[in-house]
Amino acid sequence: MERDIHPAVTDAADDIAEMEIRGAATIADAAAAALGEQAEASEAETPEAFRTEIRTAARELHETRPTAVSLPNALRYVLRGMRGETVSELRASVIEGVVEFRRELDHAQDNLGQIGANRLRDGDTIMTHCHSTDALSCVRHALEDGKEISAIVKETRPRKQGHITAKQLRDWDVPVTLIVDNAARRYLDDTDHVLVGADSIAADGSVINKVGTSGLAVNARERGVPIMVAAQTLKFHPGTMTGHTVEIEMRDEAEILPDDEREEIGDVTVENPAFDVTPPRYVDAIVTERGQFPPESVVTLMRELFGDYHASEPWER
Amino acid sequence: MERDIHPAVTDAADDIAEMEIRGAATIADAAAAALGEQAEASEAETPEAFRTEIRTAARELHETRPTAVSLPNALRYVLRGMRGETVSELRASVIEGVVEFRRELDHAQDNLGQIGANRLRDGDTIMTHCHSTDALSCVRHALEDGKEISAIVKETRPRKQGHITAKQLRDWDVPVTLIVDNAARRYLDDTDHVLVGADSIAADGSVINKVGTSGLAVNARERGVPIMVAAQTLKFHPGTMTGHTVEIEMRDEAEILPDDEREEIGDVTVENPAFDVTPPRYVDAIVTERGQFPPESVVTLMRELFGDYHASEPWER
Amino acid sequence: MERDIHPAVTDAADDIAEMEIRGAATIADAAAAALGEQAEASEAETPEAFRTEIRTAARELHETRPTAVSLPNALRYVLRGMRGETVSELRASVIEGVVEFRRELDHAQDNLGQIGANRLRDGDTIMTHCHSTDALSCVRHALEDGKEISAIVKETRPRKQGHITAKQLRDWDVPVTLIVDNAARRYLDDTDHVLVGADSIAADGSVINKVGTSGLAVNARERGVPIMVAAQTLKFHPGTMTGHTVEIEMRDEAEILPDDEREEIGDVTVENPAFDVTPPRYVDAIVTERGQFPPESVVTLMRELFGDYHASEPWER
Amino acid sequence: MERDIHPAVTDAADDIAEMEIRGAATIADAAAAALGEQAEASEAETPEAFRTEIRTAARELHETRPTAVSLPNALRYVLRGMRGETVSELRASVIEGVVEFRRELDHAQDNLGQIGANRLRDGDTIMTHCHSTDALSCVRHALEDGKEISAIVKETRPRKQGHITAKQLRDWDVPVTLIVDNAARRYLDDTDHVLVGADSIAADGSVINKVGTSGLAVNARERGVPIMVAAQTLKFHPGTMTGHTVEIEMRDEAEILPDDEREEIGDVTVENPAFDVTPPRYVDAIVTERGQFPPESVVTLMRELFGDYHASEPWER
Amino acid sequence: MERDIHPAVTDAADDIAEMEIRGAATIADAAAAALGEQAEASEAETPEAFRTEIRTAARELHETRPTAVSLPNALRYVLRGMRGETVSELRASVIEGVVEFRRELDHAQDNLGQIGANRLRDGDTIMTHCHSTDALSCVRHALEDGKEISAIVKETRPRKQGHITAKQLRDWDVPVTLIVDNAARRYLDDTDHVLVGADSIAADGSVINKVGTSGLAVNARERGVPIMVAAQTLKFHPGTMTGHTVEIEMRDEAEILPDDEREEIGDVTVENPAFDVTPPRYVDAIVTERGQFPPESVVTLMRELFGDYHASEPWER
Amino acid sequence: MERDIHPAVTDAADDIAEMEIRGAATIADAAAAALGEQAEASEAETPEAFRTEIRTAARELHETRPTAVSLPNALRYVLRGMRGETVSELRASVIEGVVEFRRELDHAQDNLGQIGANRLRDGDTIMTHCHSTDALSCVRHALEDGKEISAIVKETRPRKQGHITAKQLRDWDVPVTLIVDNAARRYLDDTDHVLVGADSIAADGSVINKVGTSGLAVNARERGVPIMVAAQTLKFHPGTMTGHTVEIEMRDEAEILPDDEREEIGDVTVENPAFDVTPPRYVDAIVTERGQFPPESVVTLMRELFGDYHASEPWER
Repeated sequence: MERDIHPAVTDAADDIAEMEIRGAATIADAAAAALGEQAEASEAETPEAFRTEIRTAARELHETRPTAVSLPNALRYVLRGMRGETVSELRASVIEGVVEFRRELDHAQDNLGQIGANRLRDGDTIMTHCHSTDALSCVRHALEDGKEISAIVKETRPRKQGHITAKQLRDWDVPVTLIVDNAARRYLDDTDHVLVGADSIAADGSVINKVGTSGLAVNARERGVPIMVAAQTLKFHPGTMTGHTVEIEMRDEAEILPDDEREEIGDVTVENPAFDVTPPRYVDAIVTERGQFPPESVVTLMRELFGDYHASEPWER
Repeated sequence: MERDIHPAVTDAADDIAEMEIRGAATIADAAAAALGEQAEASEAETPEAFRTEIRTAARELHETRPTAVSLPNALRYVLRGMRGETVSELRASVIEGVVEFRRELDHAQDNLGQIGANRLRDGDTIMTHCHSTDALSCVRHALEDGKEISAIVKETRPRKQGHITAKQLRDWDVPVTLIVDNAARRYLDDTDHVLVGADSIAADGSVINKVGTSGLAVNARERGVPIMVAAQTLKFHPGTMTGHTVEIEMRDEAEILPDDEREEIGDVTVENPAFDVTPPRYVDAIVTERGQFPPESVVTLMRELFGDYHASEPWER
Repeated sequence: MERDIHPAVTDAADDIAEMEIRGAATIADAAAAALGEQAEASEAETPEAFRTEIRTAARELHETRPTAVSLPNALRYVLRGMRGETVSELRASVIEGVVEFRRELDHAQDNLGQIGANRLRDGDTIMTHCHSTDALSCVRHALEDGKEISAIVKETRPRKQGHITAKQLRDWDVPVTLIVDNAARRYLDDTDHVLVGADSIAADGSVINKVGTSGLAVNARERGVPIMVAAQTLKFHPGTMTGHTVEIEMRDEAEILPDDEREEIGDVTVENPAFDVTPPRYVDAIVTERGQFPPESVVTLMRELFGDYHASEPWER
Repeated sequence: MERDIHPAVTDAADDIAEMEIRGAATIADAAAAALGEQAEASEAETPEAFRTEIRTAARELHETRPTAVSLPNALRYVLRGMRGETVSELRASVIEGVVEFRRELDHAQDNLGQIGANRLRDGDTIMTHCHSTDALSCVRHALEDGKEISAIVKETRPRKQGHITAKQLRDWDVPVTLIVDNAARRYLDDTDHVLVGADSIAADGSVINKVGTSGLAVNARERGVPIMVAAQTLKFHPGTMTGHTVEIEMRDEAEILPDDEREEIGDVTVENPAFDVTPPRYVDAIVTERGQFPPESVVTLMRELFGDYHASEPWER
Repeated sequence: MERDIHPAVTDAADDIAEMEIRGAATIADAAAAALGEQAEASEAETPEAFRTEIRTAARELHETRPTAVSLPNALRYVLRGMRGETVSELRASVIEGVVEFRRELDHAQDNLGQIGANRLRDGDTIMTHCHSTDALSCVRHALEDGKEISAIVKETRPRKQGHITAKQLRDWDVPVTLIVDNAARRYLDDTDHVLVGADSIAADGSVINKVGTSGLAVNARERGVPIMVAAQTLKFHPGTMTGHTVEIEMRDEAEILPDDEREEIGDVTVENPAFDVTPPRYVDAIVTERGQFPPESVVTLMRELFGDYHASEPWER
Repeated sequence: MERDIHPAVTDAADDIAEMEIRGAATIADAAAAALGEQAEASEAETPEAFRTEIRTAARELHETRPTAVSLPNALRYVLRGMRGETVSELRASVIEGVVEFRRELDHAQDNLGQIGANRLRDGDTIMTHCHSTDALSCVRHALEDGKEISAIVKETRPRKQGHITAKQLRDWDVPVTLIVDNAARRYLDDTDHVLVGADSIAADGSVINKVGTSGLAVNARERGVPIMVAAQTLKFHPGTMTGHTVEIEMRDEAEILPDDEREEIGDVTVENPAFDVTPPRYVDAIVTERGQFPPESVVTLMRELFGDYHASEPWER
């Protein structure tokens, strides 16, 4: 039956696998588009055959990078809109789903940015951690709305993505104060909003983001500073609806301790987790392209977008 | 009257001023010794003249580095023990005070280390921040008591003094896991004690220590991990008894952002405070050479050692 | 195109603008009724023309008092139910929506009161802040259910609306203890429920209510007293779904400091905000006519009633 | 009209009343099945007569055990799916609802167990309170997934249901440590998850469970240990959507103080509540057969399954 | 034996009783002075007779206003310094104690003010509650040190002593913002220090102050704003060392509800407590003339000044 | 040198070792008395010989039960008062110390009871855990003062010492409600004071008491109920001043699981710790015979009574 798979699907799968297609949004867009081409080109003669074909395509795409959060979200979105009694109804529903998904994706960061910007007031100082285009979109829209925003930028060891954030903000003429992560609590008293992105959002309202986010959020709560997480719904982690925990990637220890320094110190273990988990009670709002939500409510939007509980993924049935 | 000042005092003052004498304990020791020599060599003929002479010497020493915490503590300790009706009684009391102070100083880190070690159990894992010989003394005594101790060492940006700590612990064969500061909260669940030193301790129980300590302490409390501060009484900040706040040193911004990186990012402000302030409610115990204390009780020991409230320092009267 | 607007709409708009129609429920009712009359009287010949006409009417109504929370809620409710292929289908759907909205509005306070009453037990003492007919409806239903309720009434400076609450409760023979706002914490130990109304409810679960509510809620949580907010869904603030913050009205300073007293004191600034914002973590339940909700879940009901995220209001499309 | 009630309904009602049918799931299943038989056998000739007949049957079933949480949930589920213009359409919808409800019920504990198991990691130690087959289903699935799980089992005075839990876990070869309830806080530091069941779940996110659960949850939060509640949606308490509080059963005091011991002590009052209420802020996740939810979101699922607010139950209309 | 009592004692007792001598410091000063005159004029011939005479005088003074906190403190201070083998030694010790006590009293508010001022930084905004000359002394010294201080003044219902505070601050050219008590939490975000006085301080570290202080302190902690209490040691409540609780005065209800308003409202109970109790964990520092202290340490200073535990007061032995 | 040890010392040591002398106060009393007899009977001819003799006696006594908290406290108290230049001065000082210690001990529980009673108000309900004569002494004095006190008594598994407490309180006609430990949180809302004793008190302010105390205290704090610990200074743990942790005794598992029940359950581990540790931040006051103290201040009293830090115990020098 694999012969019915459209080359666009195989190509997309290859490109994703080989990381020629990268980034949460780009992967999702490519996967949805491939499903659309499969639907258009399908020669299936029965509804059942059509369904099987689409599911097979989805499964093939999914298997290329099973840990990418945005990939199953795109596939789930399209498959759960597939409905109809005839092949042509089914095809139309898939194509419509693909178009809708891609159109929303196209505007998601902009919409999110405007919503996040609405939370910021003229004259506010934000504190950032790591680098997030979703978070920066909120700042950009606030600036476009004529608000003056200043930023305290944590450098974010070990990879110092804070430097990228600092540079982007400077390009927009935002006054930037750069600090080491250790100095964050001291500068929280000068901060109006902690504003961070997310790697993924779990169904229990937890925020998975660059390591150091959780420690920042606990301190922000203790100092009375609200914390806002900017994350497109693409970042919702589907597996967490069924209780799955999110695997935290451990990165190369040389990011922390280059070889020459290691030699100096001797035989130490180096742990370099990429992310950590912030419990929902330390987050004030998750800003998505569909509005802002308390973290405890995100599961409802997740179910609305990606479907109710199923023992198996839609492409496995 | 300055002619009566003993050369030993002038020499000590010069060496402290020019930082040839450095480190809290070394400075305190030198200042006490100089007062002793002044007392021994004094040719004062009246008790009043003797008192004036000693106070003048103390003032001269104090003015060399008015912000060094240990210096006024040494001077206060000796001056408040000065008592007697005759010059020879006064002289004896000063010399006795000097000897006592120096003897205690000599054993302080050892005593402190044994007390701190008593809080650690065999098999415990500690988390450290920055580098503190007082804190390490606790580990050393625990090891000498035959306990197995492991360490999670925060690198402590910007100057990465965690590397010094890691190296010292490795020399003692302590298993070390090195992490970036951002990863601390995640590893608190593997930690039995947070163990840090202090730059100084304030009368309201606050702990002034390397920036990042306060954020660590808030998270440790939230995760249920006890936090122990190892600090000789020499670190007690005398001015805080009268409400003075502790000036936080701002260090060179190149420690955070070397010139080449700065050029890349553009015109950002860089803030590099050396220390921060941890409120007493986030600390479980302050371990000194005189025993362990809840931070809220330290003021009592401070008054016992350095005297009750006075509008002016003893050498200014 | 303005010529097609029904006089009922213009009249309602005028009455709302000139505050002859006042109060959240009355405004909402009038606006919905006007839309209904517009729909009934419409002479539009194409579905598109009909839609435009209804939207124009909605826009006209909305512009009269853009900050009244209940007005856009009424308009959104009706417009999002407008559906059909023909003018007559569209008309029917609008009229049905209007009827439904007004019928629900008619019973809302009663339903809400019964639900809130169910949370109260026989013999309970409530503490109130300000004056809220929604909150009082809960007490009235509890009394009708035969429960004995006592009340501790905060006077609620500066306007002392607590006196209105006290008077109403006395009319129902509820034993009332009147206290100054400052005494609230002391009397929380005698309180079973804090029961307040709301000016509006935000999508992040925050409660905007008479200034002093947030301080009361923080203390109630600290003393272990549950806090219940009684608010019809009409009070849900639609703009907050897209991150907008709620403007807090600053009222006349003479409410705090009459001219004669001001003269006495001299040149002080007087700040008199009408409302404050209580974060959701200090509220146990928001009681609406559709059931009780944890504050973190209110956004779901909001989206159900007033629609998903849109960059623009329905009447602006 | 009572003559139209099918004997299957009367029989089920009798069996429930006489507690020959016991247990939340068994009662729900029997009630749904009886409604199905009523629908199949109905000789009603008009839609109205059919509706009345079904509602009458539901009411009869409901009245047998008005406090059993699962009974109204089953009836609500079926009745809210009843729709159609003709008797045969109505009948079909009822039967379909019954089949669906029973099928879901059949898999609920399994699905829930798998979701809860996904939250547990290999090597985790859980702490249990009382005995819950839902909670144990999570452990069983974790074991089947090849994870090693250890358990700290609170004996759960007064009835020591912890012994049943211990025995079941031992049968599965889970290492078990049994402690008195008083020792729980001390062992929380060795615990990765607190895992309990629920007697019922309220719309405000509160968890009603065996007395002692709330005290355990407060301590677990303070020690940084996540708390997971395993509860099928059948346990959702419908009355709480309208603010009703859950009656806490007081049990026989001899469970605490047998007659001989009482004689010894003298005339004391003995209070023996069966359950207590844990506020949502002390619970991390409620695991149901439809996914995991933050407790604050459960109301949304409740409304989805059992309907929006109504002043009266569907069988009373 | 009463005949030996010096007229100065009887006069002071009368003046205190009839409230011609008022205010904590004035009462204490008068009582100490009277004891001094008694000692000077004493014609006792044996040490025992002298002791009895002084104790009798102290008892007579104490009985005039047994609830005034400063009175027993003055008496205890003098009596516990009474020592010697001969009448003349005893007399000298009493007179010296009196002189010392009065001299310290004379400088107490000034010393305290300087210490409190040291905690304030240039540019700080304080929030005040009620009116306290101790608290204002801190502001005055800060101004004299050249710091710019702004103030947010709570009006402090029911008696609005905030107006006195506002007027005093305006006289010193401090910018003042006056708010109702209900608005406090909202303005905490603009506040650097909450600065209040105290009616009395208990041995368990609790602060008894104008009703509303405790609610303010809980909110200040939640918003991360430090709270400083300015209180001379004269305000330490001696009875609390032996567990006595502090009686809270209930004031005239007409302060809350003038007769005309009461008539309007009907038959309500009015509760008007003058003070409330703030637990030590919500206070950062208690500033006295002897230095600043964490509230948990105050008991040590209390015992130092007024003596260790005794079942009876010194004048009752 | 052992030949100089008085038979009274040897006898006391034997009786303590063989547990014929039991209970903290009885042991302390016997040890002090034995030291007194040693001093009286001593035939030492030089001060040095006398000191050695007394230290030897102290060491012999101490070695009989090195873990009994009250034993070293008694010995330290006497030895630190030993001073003088001659044997007769030394002897007098020891005897005086012994008399003083025993006299204070004799009144300690009474004094403590009166102080604790002062914290209780007429009509208060206390909640107790385990059985403590110190805690009951507070109740007895409150009753003697004419206050009405009610009690909620936790049975305190596994040994149910709550039954002894209940019986004692019933003998005093105190109304008693007996509950299982699991029900404690639910009844905290009916409780005015949690009142417990202590096994020992640590220098960091921690309270070591019957297992379950810490969980109760955390819940009491969360519900806003003050917690009072009644403990004579005899219970202060001297070793904790130098950081030593308190060994928690593990008791016989049959207390939890009798052999017949164990057989039924199978091979489970049973953990039965006798005590747990409550951090100072969950305790409001520690009531001793010398007054009440915040737990954070206890270390000051400890140092006053038993001496400053020493590397070795006084009898080891």
